[in-house]
Amino acid sequence: MPVNLQPPAAGTLLPINGVLLGTAEASIKKPNRKDLLVMQLTPQATVAGVFTQNRFCAAPVIVAREHLASGKGIRALVVNTGNANAGTGEQGLAAAHATCAEIANLLDCEAEQVLPFSTGVIMEALPLPQIIAGLPICVAGLREDNWLNAAHAIMTTDIIAKAVSRQTTLAGKTVTITGIAKGSGMIHPNMATMLGYIATDAAVAQPLLQQMVKHASDASFNCITVDGDTSTNDALMLIATGKSEAPVITDAQGAAFEKLQAAVTEVAILLAQAIVRDGEGATKFITIKVEGGKSVAECRQIAYAVARSPLVKTAFFASDPNLGRILAAIGYAGIDLDVQRLKLYLDDVLVAEHGGRAASYREEDGQRVMQQSDITVRVVLERGVASATVWTCDFSYDYVKINASYRS
Amino acid sequence: MPVNLQPPAAGTLLPINGVLLGTAEASIKKPNRKDLLVMQLTPQATVAGVFTQNRFCAAPVIVAREHLASGKGIRALVVNTGNANAGTGEQGLAAAHATCAEIANLLDCEAEQVLPFSTGVIMEALPLPQIIAGLPICVAGLREDNWLNAAHAIMTTDIIAKAVSRQTTLAGKTVTITGIAKGSGMIHPNMATMLGYIATDAAVAQPLLQQMVKHASDASFNCITVDGDTSTNDALMLIATGKSEAPVITDAQGAAFEKLQAAVTEVAILLAQAIVRDGEGATKFITIKVEGGKSVAECRQIAYAVARSPLVKTAFFASDPNLGRILAAIGYAGIDLDVQRLKLYLDDVLVAEHGGRAASYREEDGQRVMQQSDITVRVVLERGVASATVWTCDFSYDYVKINASYRS
Repeated sequence: MPVNLQPPAAGTLLPINGVLLGTAEASIKKPNRKDLLVMQLTPQATVAGVFTQNRFCAAPVIVAREHLASGKGIRALVVNTGNANAGTGEQGLAAAHATCAEIANLLDCEAEQVLPFSTGVIMEALPLPQIIAGLPICVAGLREDNWLNAAHAIMTTDIIAKAVSRQTTLAGKTVTITGIAKGSGMIHPNMATMLGYIATDAAVAQPLLQQMVKHASDASFNCITVDGDTSTNDALMLIATGKSEAPVITDAQGAAFEKLQAAVTEVAILLAQAIVRDGEGATKFITIKVEGGKSVAECRQIAYAVARSPLVKTAFFASDPNLGRILAAIGYAGIDLDVQRLKLYLDDVLVAEHGGRAASYREEDGQRVMQQSDITVRVVLERGVASATVWTCDFSYDYVKINASYRS
Repeated sequence: MPVNLQPPAAGTLLPINGVLLGTAEASIKKPNRKDLLVMQLTPQATVAGVFTQNRFCAAPVIVAREHLASGKGIRALVVNTGNANAGTGEQGLAAAHATCAEIANLLDCEAEQVLPFSTGVIMEALPLPQIIAGLPICVAGLREDNWLNAAHAIMTTDIIAKAVSRQTTLAGKTVTITGIAKGSGMIHPNMATMLGYIATDAAVAQPLLQQMVKHASDASFNCITVDGDTSTNDALMLIATGKSEAPVITDAQGAAFEKLQAAVTEVAILLAQAIVRDGEGATKFITIKVEGGKSVAECRQIAYAVARSPLVKTAFFASDPNLGRILAAIGYAGIDLDVQRLKLYLDDVLVAEHGGRAASYREEDGQRVMQQSDITVRVVLERGVASATVWTCDFSYDYVKINASYRS
């Protein structure tokens, strides 16, 4: 069950002027569930995105990258769940292009103005007829106040839809940001997770929007892991419709850029954390902070070693303060640490120092923290001033169950 | 249950002239099980070893390294299970030294001539009184024909004792090699796994013995992974007693060195594979071969990405040919692959080529192979002549169960 994660409350999701959303039940993998989404954008919108670094990246990732680079204004995004269209070779590329062409036909734009996205099982052919049949239904249902349905339409093994809105003011004018994401397994993003979409009615020049989405993804989706598996389909897209009354942002040093970037990043972090809280089989949400390092890179390397360790993750599942496993993971992270200087905390409990168990540590204190559903592991290296945070979940029977039966 | 792994048959384990072994039930973690081992070596024996690269290496690893480096002839090894004596700081070092001192007292040698080893839970104090009480029992029971009991005395979550003997001839004289190992979880050795001991009655100069143990561990224990967690206590020791009639080996280019090294490496590979076959919760034994790479390093990197992927491992557990997960793992391994050139085979079945599913691939062929208990994944990169092999197992409910209850 998701860890301290509630579905978006009714009325908390704010529409974005300039973005229309429509969904359909296209029976791509299973009948009777929303599995297809079309987002139509106002012609003046700017769009930026980051994509997976996986070499076996999916056909829609290749096509979306090309279409973004074409410089033609993006008019629509299409997302299907139930099939990743990855590891599908030339046939997969053709299916992604055909999907874009059909939307271009329905919305009267060019195919290059459409960005395709897919999520689901890898190395199976995309069921193009079902998608082509579903697209007119999506288009017929396009409306502004449809973000919650959109969040549902992109889910795979997710239990809870992930969506959040925030508002801020730029030059005295209110701007709104709404984002949705999906993801539960194959989560160890290396650019962004499959799939996140954040839209704002602010106006942002495209190069600045690209800078903003990179910053937001580095601070959010690039800080999470469920199972250490980097997806073939990861993508985070940021859309700025320019429909608010706030002036267009063209200065990366300006206050408006900073303020909007902070709000977008907050939305991205909430969505990324929601993915971990709804991680496959998760029963605990774990924040791993590594502080006092020589560089952010070494702090991240240590945090990810702990976050990926199956032994650490099963100990959290058992609420067992078998915390030597955390020391072992820190020790094999590949950094030339002086373990005598290092301190390990579980929430506020000092667990280890001077290369071993802290004199003040009592098992019952560790046990108390381990029984919580939200836990912070803090590693203080005492060799510099850099720090990094990674969010992860535990490893349960249900993770194995979900992934031993995913295709059936 | 262990995968196609039988206990050593009676009479197949050959004694090594110059090595005496004694065990005890010392109640280190639980009563009524062998958990302490002493090996006494003839004064002329040479000893070499490789140890974990984990920065949080255990106290006995630190002491054993020091004692090996002292240059005094090693006269005894002592191994306890039930407690790793890792993450124990100064107190742990004192306990390891006290153990060596007590054996030196019992066997009339110096403490520096004793190598200590521990395995079990991390960051708990070594129960020294139990160990001190058990050592005289071990010494009283020292005998040559005791390798099977020794293999049992070092087990933790192992189900089956791991031991194997081989014989070869050097200069017309028969020499014997016998090895034991333990390990089932926290298995991703980076030098050698916790714990392996191989002894031969051949005579080998110490620097050559060190070269030989490095070669053997690189070809065996350094090619396996169960859960990606590198232990704090890994060690592989190679002992040459010189008690056979074969001449002493002093030439690393000679035929005798090559022949003995090949036999020692074969023993090491069988022991390392036994550890994977008895990996925690394992139901499948999986060989991952990556061929046609630019370097061994890149082949190993790809093989380990596949071997460590929880999604790949749960698919094997389910006997589900969800083989796109293997492509995804290859894709995120961090190598700049041209996925169009790559071929993926499951045993002899060509699964993927040209960036997607092979035209000849039929699901029922993949299904047939996935249902086997021994499976080979072969990845052909077609960009060089290097290759590497990694052995691993699947990821089951029982892995979670074992590691969610290990301390209780």
